[in-house]
Amino acid sequence: MAALNAVLGEMCELAGQAMASATQALLQADLSVAEQVIGDHDRMAELSVRAEEQSFALLALQAPVAGDLRSIVSGFQIVADVDRMGALALHVAKVARRRHPAKALPEEVNGYFAEMGRLAVQLARNAREVLNSQDPQDALALQEDDDAMDDLHRHLFTVLMDREWTHGVAAAVDVTLLGRYYERFADHAVLIGRRVVFQATGKTPEQLAEAGR
Amino acid sequence: MAALNAVLGEMCELAGQAMASATQALLQADLSVAEQVIGDHDRMAELSVRAEEQSFALLALQAPVAGDLRSIVSGFQIVADVDRMGALALHVAKVARRRHPAKALPEEVNGYFAEMGRLAVQLARNAREVLNSQDPQDALALQEDDDAMDDLHRHLFTVLMDREWTHGVAAAVDVTLLGRYYERFADHAVLIGRRVVFQATGKTPEQLAEAGR
Repeated sequence: MAALNAVLGEMCELAGQAMASATQALLQADLSVAEQVIGDHDRMAELSVRAEEQSFALLALQAPVAGDLRSIVSGFQIVADVDRMGALALHVAKVARRRHPAKALPEEVNGYFAEMGRLAVQLARNAREVLNSQDPQDALALQEDDDAMDDLHRHLFTVLMDREWTHGVAAAVDVTLLGRYYERFADHAVLIGRRVVFQATGKTPEQLAEAGR
Repeated sequence: MAALNAVLGEMCELAGQAMASATQALLQADLSVAEQVIGDHDRMAELSVRAEEQSFALLALQAPVAGDLRSIVSGFQIVADVDRMGALALHVAKVARRRHPAKALPEEVNGYFAEMGRLAVQLARNAREVLNSQDPQDALALQEDDDAMDDLHRHLFTVLMDREWTHGVAAAVDVTLLGRYYERFADHAVLIGRRVVFQATGKTPEQLAEAGR
Protein backbone atom coordinates (compact mmCIF):
# COMPACT_ATOMS: atom_id res chain seq x y z
CA MET A 1 0.00 0.00 0.00
CA ALA A 2 2.80 2.39 0.91
CA ALA A 3 4.48 1.41 -2.37
CA LEU A 4 1.33 2.38 -4.27
CA ASN A 5 1.14 5.78 -2.57
CA ALA A 6 4.86 6.25 -3.31
CA VAL A 7 4.23 5.74 -7.04
CA LEU A 8 1.30 8.16 -6.87
CA GLY A 9 3.53 10.66 -5.06
CA GLU A 10 6.19 10.28 -7.73
CA MET A 11 3.54 11.03 -10.35
CA CYS A 12 2.56 14.21 -8.46
CA GLU A 13 6.20 15.24 -8.39
CA LEU A 14 6.51 14.70 -12.14
CA ALA A 15 3.31 16.66 -12.78
CA GLY A 16 4.69 19.50 -10.64
CA GLN A 17 8.02 19.47 -12.48
CA ALA A 18 6.19 19.46 -15.79
CA MET A 19 4.15 22.49 -14.73
CA ALA A 20 7.31 24.27 -13.50
CA SER A 21 9.00 23.72 -16.86
CA ALA A 22 5.87 24.54 -18.85
CA THR A 23 5.58 27.83 -16.96
CA GLN A 24 9.23 28.61 -17.73
CA ALA A 25 8.63 27.79 -21.41
CA LEU A 26 5.58 30.03 -21.39
CA LEU A 27 7.19 33.02 -19.70
CA GLN A 28 10.42 32.88 -21.67
CA ALA A 29 9.09 31.53 -24.98
CA ASP A 30 11.64 28.74 -24.55
CA LEU A 31 10.93 26.16 -27.24
CA SER A 32 13.40 23.51 -26.05
CA VAL A 33 11.91 23.49 -22.56
CA ALA A 34 8.41 23.23 -24.06
CA GLU A 35 9.52 20.30 -26.22
CA GLN A 36 11.06 18.66 -23.16
CA VAL A 37 7.75 18.80 -21.27
CA ILE A 38 5.91 17.40 -24.28
CA GLY A 39 8.43 14.60 -24.70
CA ASP A 40 8.47 13.68 -21.00
CA HIS A 41 4.71 13.24 -20.94
CA ASP A 42 4.95 9.58 -21.96
CA ARG A 43 6.72 8.83 -18.70
CA MET A 44 3.58 9.89 -16.82
CA ALA A 45 1.43 7.54 -18.89
CA GLU A 46 3.77 4.66 -18.06
CA LEU A 47 3.57 5.40 -14.35
CA SER A 48 -0.24 5.53 -14.59
CA VAL A 49 -0.39 2.08 -16.08
CA ARG A 50 2.00 0.79 -13.42
CA ALA A 51 -0.01 2.37 -10.60
CA GLU A 52 -3.27 0.87 -11.91
CA GLU A 53 -1.70 -2.56 -12.29
CA GLN A 54 -0.33 -2.37 -8.76
CA SER A 55 -3.77 -1.37 -7.49
CA PHE A 56 -5.48 -4.28 -9.22
CA ALA A 57 -2.88 -6.68 -7.85
CA LEU A 58 -3.47 -5.40 -4.33
CA LEU A 59 -7.23 -5.74 -4.76
CA ALA A 60 -7.15 -9.19 -6.29
CA LEU A 61 -4.41 -10.92 -4.36
CA GLN A 62 -4.83 -9.61 -0.87
CA ALA A 63 -8.63 -9.44 -0.58
CA PRO A 64 -8.21 -6.25 1.43
CA VAL A 65 -10.72 -5.07 3.99
CA ALA A 66 -12.07 -1.69 5.11
CA GLY A 67 -9.10 0.66 5.40
CA ASP A 68 -6.98 -0.96 2.73
CA LEU A 69 -9.92 -1.19 0.36
CA ARG A 70 -10.48 2.53 0.81
CA SER A 71 -6.84 3.31 0.12
CA ILE A 72 -6.71 1.24 -3.04
CA VAL A 73 -9.94 2.62 -4.47
CA SER A 74 -8.77 6.14 -3.68
CA GLY A 75 -5.54 5.22 -5.44
CA PHE A 76 -7.41 4.60 -8.69
CA GLN A 77 -9.09 7.98 -8.35
CA ILE A 78 -5.79 9.71 -7.58
CA VAL A 79 -4.26 8.22 -10.74
CA ALA A 80 -7.01 9.92 -12.75
CA ASP A 81 -6.38 13.25 -10.98
CA VAL A 82 -2.65 13.23 -11.42
CA ASP A 83 -2.98 12.13 -15.05
CA ARG A 84 -5.08 15.19 -15.59
CA MET A 85 -2.50 17.41 -13.88
CA GLY A 86 0.10 16.08 -16.29
CA ALA A 87 -2.21 16.72 -19.25
CA LEU A 88 -2.77 20.32 -18.11
CA ALA A 89 0.99 20.96 -17.86
CA LEU A 90 1.24 19.50 -21.36
CA HIS A 91 -1.43 21.94 -22.59
CA VAL A 92 0.56 24.88 -21.20
CA ALA A 93 3.73 23.65 -22.92
CA LYS A 94 1.84 23.27 -26.19
CA VAL A 95 0.60 26.86 -26.07
CA ALA A 96 4.20 28.02 -25.51
CA ARG A 97 5.32 25.93 -28.49
CA ARG A 98 2.48 27.13 -30.73
CA ARG A 99 3.31 30.80 -30.13
CA HIS A 100 7.10 30.43 -30.34
CA PRO A 101 9.16 32.53 -31.11
CA ALA A 102 6.59 35.04 -29.87
CA LYS A 103 5.62 35.03 -26.22
CA ALA A 104 2.07 33.81 -25.68
CA LEU A 105 1.58 36.23 -22.80
CA PRO A 106 1.40 40.02 -22.87
CA GLU A 107 3.97 41.45 -20.43
CA GLU A 108 1.35 42.70 -17.99
CA VAL A 109 0.07 39.22 -17.09
CA ASN A 110 3.49 37.57 -16.71
CA GLY A 111 3.46 38.17 -12.98
CA TYR A 112 0.11 36.36 -12.63
CA PHE A 113 1.35 33.31 -14.46
CA ALA A 114 4.68 33.24 -12.62
CA GLU A 115 2.74 33.16 -9.36
CA MET A 116 0.12 30.69 -10.59
CA GLY A 117 2.97 28.46 -11.74
CA ARG A 118 4.64 28.71 -8.33
CA LEU A 119 1.38 27.80 -6.56
CA ALA A 120 0.74 24.89 -8.91
CA VAL A 121 4.17 23.42 -8.24
CA GLN A 122 3.69 23.95 -4.51
CA LEU A 123 0.32 22.16 -4.62
CA ALA A 124 1.79 19.20 -6.50
CA ARG A 125 4.60 18.95 -3.95
CA ASN A 126 2.15 19.14 -1.05
CA ALA A 127 -0.01 16.48 -2.69
CA ARG A 128 3.04 14.22 -2.81
CA GLU A 129 3.84 14.92 0.82
CA VAL A 130 0.37 14.13 2.11
CA LEU A 131 0.24 10.95 0.02
CA ASN A 132 3.32 9.85 1.93
CA SER A 133 2.44 11.22 5.36
CA GLN A 134 -1.30 10.42 5.21
CA ASP A 135 -1.83 13.38 7.52
CA PRO A 136 -5.47 14.48 7.13
CA GLN A 137 -4.88 18.02 8.44
CA ASP A 138 -2.05 18.66 6.00
CA ALA A 139 -4.22 17.15 3.26
CA LEU A 140 -7.01 19.62 4.05
CA ALA A 141 -4.51 22.49 3.99
CA LEU A 142 -4.08 22.08 0.22
CA GLN A 143 -7.34 23.97 -0.04
CA GLU A 144 -5.59 27.14 1.18
CA ASP A 145 -3.08 27.25 -1.65
CA ASP A 146 -5.98 26.64 -3.99
CA ASP A 147 -7.83 29.64 -2.56
CA ALA A 148 -4.78 31.74 -3.45
CA MET A 149 -4.90 30.27 -6.96
CA ASP A 150 -8.59 31.13 -7.30
CA ASP A 151 -7.91 34.71 -6.21
CA LEU A 152 -5.18 35.11 -8.83
CA HIS A 153 -7.43 33.59 -11.46
CA ARG A 154 -10.20 36.03 -10.63
CA HIS A 155 -7.84 39.01 -10.77
CA LEU A 156 -6.53 37.81 -14.08
CA PHE A 157 -10.05 38.15 -15.49
CA THR A 158 -10.33 41.71 -14.27
CA VAL A 159 -7.13 42.49 -16.23
CA LEU A 160 -8.64 40.87 -19.32
CA MET A 161 -11.93 42.69 -19.00
CA ASP A 162 -10.28 46.05 -18.46
CA ARG A 163 -10.88 48.54 -21.23
CA GLU A 164 -7.14 49.12 -21.28
CA TRP A 165 -6.55 45.60 -22.67
CA THR A 166 -4.81 46.35 -25.95
CA HIS A 167 -3.60 42.91 -26.94
CA GLY A 168 -6.60 41.83 -28.93
CA VAL A 169 -8.87 38.84 -28.83
CA ALA A 170 -6.32 36.14 -29.75
CA ALA A 171 -4.14 36.95 -26.73
CA ALA A 172 -7.25 37.13 -24.54
CA VAL A 173 -8.28 33.64 -25.66
CA ASP A 174 -4.80 32.29 -24.85
CA VAL A 175 -4.77 33.94 -21.44
CA THR A 176 -8.28 32.65 -20.70
CA LEU A 177 -7.40 29.06 -21.52
CA LEU A 178 -4.02 29.19 -19.79
CA GLY A 179 -5.60 30.61 -16.65
CA ARG A 180 -8.08 27.77 -16.70
CA TYR A 181 -5.29 25.17 -17.05
CA TYR A 182 -3.55 26.41 -13.91
CA GLU A 183 -6.78 26.64 -11.98
CA ARG A 184 -7.80 23.09 -12.91
CA PHE A 185 -4.32 21.77 -12.08
CA ALA A 186 -4.76 23.21 -8.59
CA ASP A 187 -8.29 21.76 -8.30
CA HIS A 188 -6.96 18.27 -8.97
CA ALA A 189 -4.27 18.67 -6.30
CA VAL A 190 -7.03 19.64 -3.86
CA LEU A 191 -9.02 16.58 -4.90
CA ILE A 192 -5.98 14.42 -4.13
CA GLY A 193 -5.87 16.02 -0.70
CA ARG A 194 -9.56 15.13 -0.21
CA ARG A 195 -8.89 11.54 -1.24
CA VAL A 196 -5.99 11.31 1.21
CA VAL A 197 -8.36 12.47 3.97
CA PHE A 198 -10.64 9.60 2.98
CA GLN A 199 -7.74 7.13 2.80
CA ALA A 200 -6.56 8.13 6.25
CA THR A 201 -9.86 8.56 8.10
CA GLY A 202 -12.62 6.87 6.09
CA LYS A 203 -14.42 10.20 6.08
CA THR A 204 -14.90 12.94 3.52
CA PRO A 205 -13.52 16.34 4.57
CA GLU A 206 -17.11 17.45 5.26
CA GLN A 207 -17.82 14.42 7.46
CA LEU A 208 -14.52 15.02 9.26
CA ALA A 209 -15.42 18.66 9.94
CA GLU A 210 -18.85 17.56 11.18
CA ALA A 211 -17.33 14.96 13.51
CA GLY A 212 -14.84 17.50 14.90
CA ARG A 213 -17.53 19.88 16.09
CA MET B 1 -23.26 -5.07 -10.75
CA ALA B 2 -26.00 -4.30 -13.25
CA ALA B 3 -27.64 -2.18 -10.54
CA LEU B 4 -24.45 -0.15 -10.17
CA ASN B 5 -24.19 0.44 -13.91
CA ALA B 6 -27.87 1.43 -13.93
CA VAL B 7 -27.20 4.15 -11.33
CA LEU B 8 -24.21 5.34 -13.34
CA GLY B 9 -26.39 5.39 -16.46
CA GLU B 10 -29.02 7.41 -14.63
CA MET B 11 -26.30 9.89 -13.68
CA CYS B 12 -25.27 10.18 -17.35
CA GLU B 13 -28.87 10.83 -18.28
CA LEU B 14 -29.14 13.59 -15.66
CA ALA B 15 -25.87 15.15 -16.83
CA GLY B 16 -27.20 15.11 -20.39
CA GLN B 17 -30.50 16.69 -19.35
CA ALA B 18 -28.61 19.32 -17.39
CA MET B 19 -26.51 20.15 -20.45
CA ALA B 20 -29.62 20.28 -22.65
CA SER B 21 -31.29 22.75 -20.28
CA ALA B 22 -28.10 24.74 -19.74
CA THR B 23 -27.74 25.13 -23.51
CA GLN B 24 -31.34 26.30 -23.74
CA ALA B 25 -30.72 28.80 -20.92
CA LEU B 26 -27.59 30.00 -22.70
CA LEU B 27 -29.14 30.41 -26.14
CA GLN B 28 -32.36 32.03 -24.93
CA ALA B 29 -31.01 33.88 -21.88
CA ASP B 30 -33.65 32.00 -19.90
CA LEU B 31 -32.98 32.66 -16.23
CA SER B 32 -35.54 30.23 -14.80
CA VAL B 33 -34.10 27.33 -16.80
CA ALA B 34 -30.59 28.30 -15.67
CA GLU B 35 -31.76 28.36 -12.04
CA GLN B 36 -33.40 24.98 -12.50
CA VAL B 37 -30.12 23.42 -13.68
CA ILE B 38 -28.26 24.99 -10.77
CA GLY B 39 -30.87 23.78 -8.28
CA ASP B 40 -30.98 20.24 -9.69
CA HIS B 41 -27.24 19.81 -9.31
CA ASP B 42 -27.58 18.52 -5.75
CA ARG B 43 -29.44 15.49 -7.05
CA MET B 44 -26.29 14.50 -8.97
CA ALA B 45 -24.18 14.75 -5.83
CA GLU B 46 -26.62 12.45 -4.01
CA LEU B 47 -26.45 9.87 -6.76
CA SER B 48 -22.63 10.02 -6.67
CA VAL B 49 -22.57 9.22 -3.00
CA ARG B 50 -25.04 6.37 -3.55
CA ALA B 51 -23.02 4.94 -6.44
CA GLU B 52 -19.79 5.04 -4.41
CA GLU B 53 -21.46 3.39 -1.42
CA GLN B 54 -22.88 0.68 -3.66
CA SER B 55 -19.44 0.12 -5.15
CA PHE B 56 -17.78 -0.21 -1.76
CA ALA B 57 -20.47 -2.65 -0.64
CA LEU B 58 -19.89 -4.78 -3.75
CA LEU B 59 -16.14 -4.75 -3.16
CA ALA B 60 -16.29 -5.50 0.54
CA LEU B 61 -19.10 -8.02 0.76
CA GLN B 62 -18.68 -10.10 -2.31
CA ALA B 63 -14.87 -10.34 -2.57
CA PRO B 64 -15.24 -10.11 -6.33
CA VAL B 65 -12.73 -11.57 -8.75
CA ALA B 66 -11.31 -10.53 -12.14
CA GLY B 67 -14.23 -9.31 -14.27
CA ASP B 68 -16.36 -8.04 -11.41
CA LEU B 69 -13.39 -6.33 -9.81
CA ARG B 70 -12.72 -4.55 -13.07
CA SER B 71 -16.33 -3.42 -13.36
CA ILE B 72 -16.47 -2.06 -9.85
CA VAL B 73 -13.18 -0.19 -10.08
CA SER B 74 -14.26 1.26 -13.41
CA GLY B 75 -17.48 2.24 -11.69
CA PHE B 76 -15.59 4.47 -9.26
CA GLN B 77 -13.81 6.12 -12.17
CA ILE B 78 -17.06 6.60 -14.07
CA VAL B 79 -18.59 8.34 -11.05
CA ALA B 80 -15.75 10.88 -11.21
CA ASP B 81 -16.31 11.41 -14.96
CA VAL B 82 -20.04 11.87 -14.74
CA ASP B 83 -19.67 14.17 -11.73
CA ARG B 84 -17.47 16.33 -13.88
CA MET B 85 -20.02 16.30 -16.71
CA GLY B 86 -22.64 17.56 -14.26
CA ALA B 87 -20.26 20.27 -13.03
CA LEU B 88 -19.60 21.43 -16.59
CA ALA B 89 -23.34 21.71 -17.33
CA LEU B 90 -23.58 23.70 -14.10
CA HIS B 91 -20.82 26.05 -15.33
CA VAL B 92 -22.74 26.69 -18.55
CA ALA B 93 -25.93 27.46 -16.60
CA LYS B 94 -23.99 29.85 -14.36
CA VAL B 95 -22.64 31.80 -17.33
CA ALA B 96 -26.22 32.12 -18.64
CA ARG B 97 -27.37 33.36 -15.22
CA ARG B 98 -24.45 35.80 -14.86
CA ARG B 99 -25.19 37.49 -18.19
CA HIS B 100 -28.98 37.56 -17.83
CA PRO B 101 -30.98 39.46 -19.10
CA ALA B 102 -28.33 39.84 -21.83
CA LYS B 103 -27.41 36.85 -23.93
CA ALA B 104 -23.92 35.60 -23.22
CA LEU B 105 -23.39 34.64 -26.85
CA PRO B 106 -23.11 36.90 -29.89
CA GLU B 107 -25.66 35.85 -32.49
CA GLU B 108 -23.05 34.51 -34.91
CA VAL B 109 -21.89 31.70 -32.59
CA ASN B 110 -25.37 30.54 -31.52
CA GLY B 111 -25.36 27.85 -34.18
CA TYR B 112 -22.09 26.42 -32.88
CA PHE B 113 -23.38 26.17 -29.35
CA ALA B 114 -26.75 24.73 -30.40
CA GLU B 115 -24.85 21.98 -32.22
CA MET B 116 -22.29 21.45 -29.45
CA GLY B 117 -25.19 21.16 -27.02
CA ARG B 118 -26.89 18.60 -29.23
CA LEU B 119 -23.71 16.55 -29.48
CA ALA B 120 -23.11 16.74 -25.73
CA VAL B 121 -26.59 15.43 -24.98
CA GLN B 122 -26.15 12.69 -27.57
CA LEU B 123 -22.84 11.65 -26.00
CA ALA B 124 -24.37 11.50 -22.54
CA ARG B 125 -27.22 9.36 -23.88
CA ASN B 126 -24.80 7.04 -25.67
CA ALA B 127 -22.71 6.75 -22.52
CA ARG B 128 -25.81 5.62 -20.67
CA GLU B 129 -26.66 3.10 -23.36
CA VAL B 130 -23.23 1.49 -23.40
CA LEU B 131 -23.16 1.34 -19.62
CA ASN B 132 -26.31 -0.78 -19.88
CA SER B 133 -25.43 -2.79 -22.99
CA GLN B 134 -21.72 -3.24 -22.18
CA ASP B 135 -21.14 -3.39 -25.93
CA PRO B 136 -17.45 -2.54 -26.55
CA GLN B 137 -17.96 -1.54 -30.21
CA ASP B 138 -20.74 0.90 -29.32
CA ALA B 139 -18.58 2.18 -26.46
CA LEU B 140 -15.72 2.89 -28.89
CA ALA B 141 -18.13 4.69 -31.23
CA LEU B 142 -18.51 7.52 -28.70
CA GLN B 143 -15.19 8.73 -30.06
CA GLU B 144 -16.87 9.65 -33.35
CA ASP B 145 -19.34 12.08 -31.83
CA ASP B 146 -16.42 13.54 -29.93
CA ASP B 147 -14.50 14.08 -33.17
CA ALA B 148 -17.48 16.11 -34.41
CA MET B 149 -17.35 18.11 -31.16
CA ASP B 150 -13.63 18.77 -31.61
CA ASP B 151 -14.22 20.00 -35.16
CA LEU B 152 -16.89 22.42 -34.00
CA HIS B 153 -14.65 23.60 -31.20
CA ARG B 154 -11.82 24.28 -33.63
CA HIS B 155 -14.09 26.19 -36.00
CA LEU B 156 -15.38 28.23 -33.11
CA PHE B 157 -11.82 29.46 -32.51
CA THR B 158 -11.47 30.55 -36.10
CA VAL B 159 -14.60 32.68 -35.64
CA LEU B 160 -13.10 34.20 -32.49
CA MET B 161 -9.76 34.91 -34.11
CA ASP B 162 -11.32 36.48 -37.17
CA ARG B 163 -10.61 40.17 -37.58
CA GLU B 164 -14.32 40.67 -38.06
CA TRP B 165 -14.99 39.77 -34.40
CA THR B 166 -16.65 42.92 -33.12
CA HIS B 167 -17.95 41.75 -29.77
CA GLY B 168 -14.95 42.64 -27.68
CA VAL B 169 -12.78 40.75 -25.27
CA ALA B 170 -15.38 40.00 -22.60
CA ALA B 171 -17.59 38.07 -25.04
CA ALA B 172 -14.52 36.32 -26.43
CA VAL B 173 -13.58 35.16 -22.93
CA ASP B 174 -17.11 33.82 -22.35
CA VAL B 175 -17.14 32.01 -25.68
CA THR B 176 -13.68 30.55 -25.01
CA LEU B 177 -14.66 29.16 -21.64
CA LEU B 178 -18.07 27.93 -22.81
CA GLY B 179 -16.48 26.15 -25.76
CA ARG B 180 -14.09 24.48 -23.39
CA TYR B 181 -16.95 23.32 -21.11
CA TYR B 182 -18.71 21.54 -23.97
CA GLU B 183 -15.49 20.01 -25.24
CA ARG B 184 -14.57 18.67 -21.80
CA PHE B 185 -18.10 17.33 -21.27
CA ALA B 186 -17.66 15.32 -24.47
CA ASP B 187 -14.18 14.14 -23.40
CA HIS B 188 -15.61 12.70 -20.20
CA ALA B 189 -18.32 10.83 -22.12
CA VAL B 190 -15.58 9.33 -24.29
CA LEU B 191 -13.66 8.34 -21.16
CA ILE B 192 -16.79 6.55 -19.90
CA GLY B 193 -16.89 4.69 -23.22
CA ARG B 194 -13.25 3.67 -22.72
CA ARG B 195 -14.00 2.43 -19.22
CA VAL B 196 -16.96 0.40 -20.50
CA VAL B 197 -14.59 -1.24 -23.01
CA PHE B 198 -12.39 -2.18 -20.07
CA GLN B 199 -15.36 -3.39 -18.00
CA ALA B 200 -16.57 -5.57 -20.85
CA THR B 201 -13.29 -6.92 -22.22
CA GLY B 202 -10.55 -6.37 -19.63
CA LYS B 203 -8.65 -4.46 -22.30
CA THR B 204 -8.04 -0.81 -23.03
CA PRO B 205 -9.33 0.37 -26.42
CA GLU B 206 -5.71 0.34 -27.67
CA GLN B 207 -5.14 -3.24 -26.48
CA LEU B 208 -8.43 -4.24 -28.06
CA ALA B 209 -7.44 -2.71 -31.41
CA GLU B 210 -4.07 -4.47 -31.20
CA ALA B 211 -5.71 -7.83 -30.45
CA GLY B 212 -8.15 -7.41 -33.36
CA ARG B 213 -5.40 -7.04 -35.94
